[in-house]
Amino acid sequence: MSRRLGVGLLGVGWMGALHTRAYRRLTDHYPELDVRCELVAAADVGESGRRRAVEELGYARAEPDWRAVVDDPDVDVVSVTAPNALHREMALAVLAAGKALWVEKPVGRGLAETAAVAAALGPGAVTAVGFNYRTVPLVEHAGALVAAGALGRITGFRGWFLNDYASNPWGPLNWRFSRDGAGSGALGDLMSHVVDLATALLGPLREVVAVTDVAIARRPYAAGEGEHFATLGPGALEPPGDDVPTGEVENEDSARVLARFASGASGFLEVDRAAVGPHCSLGFEIHGSTGSLSWDFERMNELQLYLADTTGDAGYRRVLARPGHGDYGRFQPGPAISMSYDDLKVIEAARFVGAVLTGDPLAPGLAEALSAARAVDAMERSAASRAWEAVA
Amino acid sequence: MSRRLGVGLLGVGWMGALHTRAYRRLTDHYPELDVRCELVAAADVGESGRRRAVEELGYARAEPDWRAVVDDPDVDVVSVTAPNALHREMALAVLAAGKALWVEKPVGRGLAETAAVAAALGPGAVTAVGFNYRTVPLVEHAGALVAAGALGRITGFRGWFLNDYASNPWGPLNWRFSRDGAGSGALGDLMSHVVDLATALLGPLREVVAVTDVAIARRPYAAGEGEHFATLGPGALEPPGDDVPTGEVENEDSARVLARFASGASGFLEVDRAAVGPHCSLGFEIHGSTGSLSWDFERMNELQLYLADTTGDAGYRRVLARPGHGDYGRFQPGPAISMSYDDLKVIEAARFVGAVLTGDPLAPGLAEALSAARAVDAMERSAASRAWEAVA
Amino acid sequence: MSRRLGVGLLGVGWMGALHTRAYRRLTDHYPELDVRCELVAAADVGESGRRRAVEELGYARAEPDWRAVVDDPDVDVVSVTAPNALHREMALAVLAAGKALWVEKPVGRGLAETAAVAAALGPGAVTAVGFNYRTVPLVEHAGALVAAGALGRITGFRGWFLNDYASNPWGPLNWRFSRDGAGSGALGDLMSHVVDLATALLGPLREVVAVTDVAIARRPYAAGEGEHFATLGPGALEPPGDDVPTGEVENEDSARVLARFASGASGFLEVDRAAVGPHCSLGFEIHGSTGSLSWDFERMNELQLYLADTTGDAGYRRVLARPGHGDYGRFQPGPAISMSYDDLKVIEAARFVGAVLTGDPLAPGLAEALSAARAVDAMERSAASRAWEAVA
Amino acid sequence: MSRRLGVGLLGVGWMGALHTRAYRRLTDHYPELDVRCELVAAADVGESGRRRAVEELGYARAEPDWRAVVDDPDVDVVSVTAPNALHREMALAVLAAGKALWVEKPVGRGLAETAAVAAALGPGAVTAVGFNYRTVPLVEHAGALVAAGALGRITGFRGWFLNDYASNPWGPLNWRFSRDGAGSGALGDLMSHVVDLATALLGPLREVVAVTDVAIARRPYAAGEGEHFATLGPGALEPPGDDVPTGEVENEDSARVLARFASGASGFLEVDRAAVGPHCSLGFEIHGSTGSLSWDFERMNELQLYLADTTGDAGYRRVLARPGHGDYGRFQPGPAISMSYDDLKVIEAARFVGAVLTGDPLAPGLAEALSAARAVDAMERSAASRAWEAVA
Repeated sequence: MSRRLGVGLLGVGWMGALHTRAYRRLTDHYPELDVRCELVAAADVGESGRRRAVEELGYARAEPDWRAVVDDPDVDVVSVTAPNALHREMALAVLAAGKALWVEKPVGRGLAETAAVAAALGPGAVTAVGFNYRTVPLVEHAGALVAAGALGRITGFRGWFLNDYASNPWGPLNWRFSRDGAGSGALGDLMSHVVDLATALLGPLREVVAVTDVAIARRPYAAGEGEHFATLGPGALEPPGDDVPTGEVENEDSARVLARFASGASGFLEVDRAAVGPHCSLGFEIHGSTGSLSWDFERMNELQLYLADTTGDAGYRRVLARPGHGDYGRFQPGPAISMSYDDLKVIEAARFVGAVLTGDPLAPGLAEALSAARAVDAMERSAASRAWEAVA
Repeated sequence: MSRRLGVGLLGVGWMGALHTRAYRRLTDHYPELDVRCELVAAADVGESGRRRAVEELGYARAEPDWRAVVDDPDVDVVSVTAPNALHREMALAVLAAGKALWVEKPVGRGLAETAAVAAALGPGAVTAVGFNYRTVPLVEHAGALVAAGALGRITGFRGWFLNDYASNPWGPLNWRFSRDGAGSGALGDLMSHVVDLATALLGPLREVVAVTDVAIARRPYAAGEGEHFATLGPGALEPPGDDVPTGEVENEDSARVLARFASGASGFLEVDRAAVGPHCSLGFEIHGSTGSLSWDFERMNELQLYLADTTGDAGYRRVLARPGHGDYGRFQPGPAISMSYDDLKVIEAARFVGAVLTGDPLAPGLAEALSAARAVDAMERSAASRAWEAVA
Repeated sequence: MSRRLGVGLLGVGWMGALHTRAYRRLTDHYPELDVRCELVAAADVGESGRRRAVEELGYARAEPDWRAVVDDPDVDVVSVTAPNALHREMALAVLAAGKALWVEKPVGRGLAETAAVAAALGPGAVTAVGFNYRTVPLVEHAGALVAAGALGRITGFRGWFLNDYASNPWGPLNWRFSRDGAGSGALGDLMSHVVDLATALLGPLREVVAVTDVAIARRPYAAGEGEHFATLGPGALEPPGDDVPTGEVENEDSARVLARFASGASGFLEVDRAAVGPHCSLGFEIHGSTGSLSWDFERMNELQLYLADTTGDAGYRRVLARPGHGDYGRFQPGPAISMSYDDLKVIEAARFVGAVLTGDPLAPGLAEALSAARAVDAMERSAASRAWEAVA
Repeated sequence: MSRRLGVGLLGVGWMGALHTRAYRRLTDHYPELDVRCELVAAADVGESGRRRAVEELGYARAEPDWRAVVDDPDVDVVSVTAPNALHREMALAVLAAGKALWVEKPVGRGLAETAAVAAALGPGAVTAVGFNYRTVPLVEHAGALVAAGALGRITGFRGWFLNDYASNPWGPLNWRFSRDGAGSGALGDLMSHVVDLATALLGPLREVVAVTDVAIARRPYAAGEGEHFATLGPGALEPPGDDVPTGEVENEDSARVLARFASGASGFLEVDRAAVGPHCSLGFEIHGSTGSLSWDFERMNELQLYLADTTGDAGYRRVLARPGHGDYGRFQPGPAISMSYDDLKVIEAARFVGAVLTGDPLAPGLAEALSAARAVDAMERSAASRAWEAVA
């Protein structure tokens, strides 16, 4: 008979819904887990969030105080999907309660907060961190190709996350643009993903030198809730009236980093949250002595792969996802049938829940989050020191 | 309070699972439907299918006899996802029972069977037919662009579905390759999709001239269940031994059609189930007097769009899906975040269930299935007569 | 010491200049021909053409009467690059004079004219016909791959030439749009190229069924010389005033053809001179039992190639031109360095002059032009008869 | 009547032939220059080079001593296309002789040599430097778009030149791999192009931080002449026998640079001569506050352009070259007809000769070569100092 797991959710927004749906879809794609996830309780400070948790997402109840969810004895696993400023405190409480933790990234608003959470990890603690993109089937396949030596010795890397969510200068000055609300800007939000992919694919970074830039120095004060997506596109927000007050953007819109990996490879890492052109372009390009590959989230289900051969017909191949690539076969029965971003969260959930059930180690967890935070911290230090900084 | 709908499922395979998950995910993406789909009963002739229905898919019970599901008074809506040879009989029974019908395509093994079902439609009957691709957000957006005149007067169309599921000559001779099991081959299975998209985008076909071909004339008898996907790719099935008996393929692997639309536009329609190169390439290209566009399922979340202008900088644009394109905004909050094939079934389910609740008309339903069957029938006639045939 | 060849040119326009430059560049790329092409005389009815021939192109003299060039005893080879209506008479005169003939396509305004020229071919006559695209290095490489069986048994073909040169409805009604001036429209001008490529790659066509369309029924009378390129683009011609008289377009803007090859393969052939989107998109796609390939002139220096394998990493490869592909190595020393359209005429010239010097057979010559004209004629007949027509 | 210019050539290799053909083709594409280039004399130390100069390239005579060419009073303009180690001395001699100079890049084996040549420039001296890629029509068009503000304020740049000419570890250790023969490696050979394009498009670099790497530390001693192209591809050079002696590679195979422009924009610059995947991928990507664009030499005749708009249909446009883009209209009459790399040298020659005839200023000349050399020097210094270095 199926084992039961009680789920608690802290923060009911886009990510909270994604976590919840992922728990609910586990059996569809990972029936051998033989688990029944019971949606015990959700917490949100807002009335609408609490109502949504019960009516749409299916939680048995919703609480204004997140501690009530963490402390509920029926809750075994807790998803932390609240705004970044709350991650540390919530994560510490979940660990203190001896429960399994699935926390969205960034775990903290900087290295200190992330390290504090990591320091609280007891033996046997199970933690998963929402670096969504590691589980993309073709990203896992790319990693397998690199590990198997298909590209030879790796010489160069380029990773990027160019997003347009803050490209509209009339988009509101929400918590993402303040030190107190978010810590760093594009570095914490976007670069942490790039670093995590780089590390997963090529191993740890050794040292970095970085520049950061603010493209839009002031933005209008937010009227209500901050919008995540304020793009220079359709339904572009109107320029506010002449007298609309604006405030200072306190963290970087973009960063460019030159890096050296522990393996000796060198590379570039680039992030921008105010890009105009790319919409959600997270990707990487890897060069080796016998081949190259590249991938971009905007074409999540395909990989460009070059393998040297002695014919005149070598060329970058457009490899479409198919069973055999990562967990693709869990979702689609044949090649070239699109998976979704949301499916990635199902894979994440399956690995998290699998680790909870078996005690097996899990990545990316807090160790990986700490590693990414260290790299991001070195980038921030370098932008200030104008020198190479070691990734401790 | 939410309205309750009792769901019955006839046939527990890939499509059966997709319908079921779609019912379950309705509230996530269409909360305003305010419906609670109760999985009452599923039918399958196989023990494993019945077990899966209960244990994985969540039906309250499973039956070996599908009539028991249709007749269950707790069942309000019935999904028909059994092999093609059973569609007609099942659909007729569902309609006779006065229940709402969601049937996979093709509705029949040819025009006669489809017409028989259509003839049984009473007033107020709600039917949905699984032409999955109409609901792709960028397909709907393409249709909106055409309808708004963004391309000017439409002069040319090309539609295709090139699939490699039968590309392996050692793949087993399952029911898809027999007249009795499937009726036509690529015409019924793939061309019906192409015709449906063509019609949705440009209006009805007037006449056609067609050729059909069998690429692999004989295939090994199937040992067990037929595999849907037998590609010339990884894990390619081994050539069977020398003495393995083979049987004749009775229907076409591919078809090529020259067509005239009622609007006056001309075009090509092409299908192949034994393609080697394309994996799941369903798409279309539309040319007009002031622009062109094209789309392919292998890149479901992007559209190529050309709009003439008087600068020297016109060019095909790669438009990525975003909120505002069809129902994309139901699934993703920002641009360029991949939706899945499975999401398309959620959209289908939402429209089906919406029509059940409101009585509003619904497309594609049996009228559209009949229209597609007529076009496919004209193609079959033309391949035999070697003449232009009217799409009656 | 180099052998001398005296060159005569009939018609000084874009193509006349291209032929001339090609003769002049022979030694750069084919030094072993060891030939010295002397530009003896050019003919043009226009004063400006004659002046250009001498001052820019380098002919020793220019004549208003083309017969004076053909009859000049110093002229050994003659390029016919005058408007289509003159091709037949000029070609016959060149052959009657016992001189080598390089004639632009179409050789005649229809099958009868082309056949008349072909009938005049004596033993040992050397003829080249300007099917420019056969000599593209990657087209030749594609042919070599097909011939070597790299794609297995060929099952399907698609060829197209979608050009926007007549896409502007205010473009002038020049000779191209009249039966007397051009014969057929897009069929003679564009389809002859498609047919020639199809035949070169897959062998002869057996039968066809065709539709033709006129997209722009009337156009303004031409004020002066007809413009070849009148696109819906930058510097788009202004709509003429209200009272500008227009005349009827007498031949087709587009054609769509369903074809059966002698080999048994089936396919589509499509041409449009009023396309809006493609600019100069001539290309083909070939499907076989173990692979596929495609090519487009808009990306002349790359080939998309799919070869089945048993890994999960097969995919369309973007093969860039390199030494070893056709005559590419005559022009560039390493891979991926762009060749030009004009270079194709140098290759053509080299093969023509080589055949003149050696007497070796040459293709495409009049035999191939006749073959293409027969196929185009069958298409015209089919558009009228609405029936399959044999390519005699 | 046409003005006459006497041409001298120093070094008869690939580049020497390109310069020569460019002089010969001037009248074809720039008739208004009204110039007659007379190929007076070429110099080469090799017998075969001298023979080729006369027999294939058409020089009146060839000399073993290059000074004889420079000093020939009939020579007005001199092309320097010998190996890099000779550039400085030759260029100084040409300038000292008061003649116009067209020198291939790099002008020197480092900043000192380039500066020495620049210092010798007298008033009125005409110099052109072979930064071939500035004159690509779509590169010029990209520059015009940036200058016109089509992309808004420029925030980011990425430039690259990834070439596989030294990707084969068994390729011979020719002069390119020694400090004495070439100075730096990929920096001088490839990065100088990237810097020149970056500067032409965005203005000068302010400071850089760089890493350099040697991918293949030792290579076999060259048996005869060094091959420029030794790729990991078709006809891949065989591994030499076990006992084949090898020597050390003295300069970098690749470099990665983080840069700050004087304008405030930041960016990446990357070069690799041993890439496996890209063949001749030189390109750039520019991001601004209202749009982005990118271009790559592997698709020389197309530009990717994104311009923000308020519809949901913005997307990267594939703009194909056409008349109106740079000097494209000098070569092709309509859009999307491929130009060649060699055509770029014709444009260069036209601008050089035009400046000689008119005395008008010319770029890129020695000033631009010096600017590029300063940037490359800063990169070399940074790779050694591990610090940001100013581009003096």
